[in-house]
Amino acid sequence: MALKVYADRMSQPSRAVILFCKVNGIDFEEILVDIFKNEQFSPEYKAINPMHQVPAIVDGRFKLSESHAILIYICCAFPGVASHWYPGDLIKRAKIHSVLDWHHANLRRGSAGLVFNTLLAQLDGHHSYPQVVNQAEGILLKSLSMLEKFWLKDGRFLVGGSQPSIADISLVCEIMQLELLSEKERDRILGPFKKVVQWIEDTKIATAPHFDEVHGVLFNAQKRFRERMKTKPELKAKL
Amino acid sequence: MALKVYADRMSQPSRAVILFCKVNGIDFEEILVDIFKNEQFSPEYKAINPMHQVPAIVDGRFKLSESHAILIYICCAFPGVASHWYPGDLIKRAKIHSVLDWHHANLRRGSAGLVFNTLLAQLDGHHSYPQVVNQAEGILLKSLSMLEKFWLKDGRFLVGGSQPSIADISLVCEIMQLELLSEKERDRILGPFKKVVQWIEDTKIATAPHFDEVHGVLFNAQKRFRERMKTKPELKAKL
Repeated sequence: MALKVYADRMSQPSRAVILFCKVNGIDFEEILVDIFKNEQFSPEYKAINPMHQVPAIVDGRFKLSESHAILIYICCAFPGVASHWYPGDLIKRAKIHSVLDWHHANLRRGSAGLVFNTLLAQLDGHHSYPQVVNQAEGILLKSLSMLEKFWLKDGRFLVGGSQPSIADISLVCEIMQLELLSEKERDRILGPFKKVVQWIEDTKIATAPHFDEVHGVLFNAQKRFRERMKTKPELKAKL
Repeated sequence: MALKVYADRMSQPSRAVILFCKVNGIDFEEILVDIFKNEQFSPEYKAINPMHQVPAIVDGRFKLSESHAILIYICCAFPGVASHWYPGDLIKRAKIHSVLDWHHANLRRGSAGLVFNTLLAQLDGHHSYPQVVNQAEGILLKSLSMLEKFWLKDGRFLVGGSQPSIADISLVCEIMQLELLSEKERDRILGPFKKVVQWIEDTKIATAPHFDEVHGVLFNAQKRFRERMKTKPELKAKL
């Protein structure tokens, strides 16, 4: 029975797992859990992941949530995965764990916080507090600066890699969420970080043609959001 | 040369690493980076960890930050560590990764957010927003509920363990930060979660006598904070 991946491509960790499976030729079945329809709260999905989050996997009788744990599991459970994705070397592996752990409270918190509070919440009519938006943008800019100066200082890929690891897939899929902002906003945020911009390109190339295919939903959503924003005068300035 | 652990026992991930080393008889040197004196921002410490956070380790020429990555590294690099702390079995290990990843955006965010915004920020004269406090408490209560109903459902320790893993050390050290709140507040928050309370006790017993020794700084800080709060009328109600 093929690995089951419960996911919504609008979620950045879902895309990371799907992209990784595709790039590595893993035999898997993708099952949509539509987060805009709150399907992650359904009783059926609760039996898969009581945390109500995507992605989750089911491999035989084994259920697992949290995208980083899933990526590591797939690397170890499927013999065909090349070693550069999750090297056996103790020090290389420790560095990958370190950047993946750092991701949670830094890049993810900044990027997801900014996109949610500037765009998604407002489109749904929720109030957005300027302090919250400013704090998220601050965390994002600091995280991008750490990527530029530290995590990417020794190689084309994270933590000195000459080939991508699971950390590159995870973190680039996170940054891609900024596609939901306007081009102007995205360029203002990412523009100053030349190494980061090059690394995103290098990761896209290393995972082509799957990268664009997996992100297609996001690009389409961006167009739809632009259309909806045009109908909301208070959001027009952000286009 | 012994492993160097840069830490401040007031930080919950610092305590997790120190406690783990002591319980496993690792030969290590503890170097205080006093976070209340902002020593994590010194040029000397920047050379150890540019992220300005504790803990970090130096093992020979290898530097590593992020407590979960450090705990995994020590399990793999030091032959004397018993296998229950980080089992080689693929599925057991995957579950440990999963709960450690979950910790970041859930238990840690709730617990650290609540303690900081109800106590530390106010003692330092920072303004604390009720929405922020309520949000942190909500995340904490939801996290404790998930621990009770899901992560502790299959055994005395997390993810079905009959002996503790690095995840038990990490998450219990996090919850211990609630000691900084008043006994009344702590009991109100933890009281309804009987399995969680028993698991904290079981982890204390499994790591005795080091557990109390490593948390001594926290217990002393609690007494000092109580004294300072008595001088602030607006905080007296929280004693």
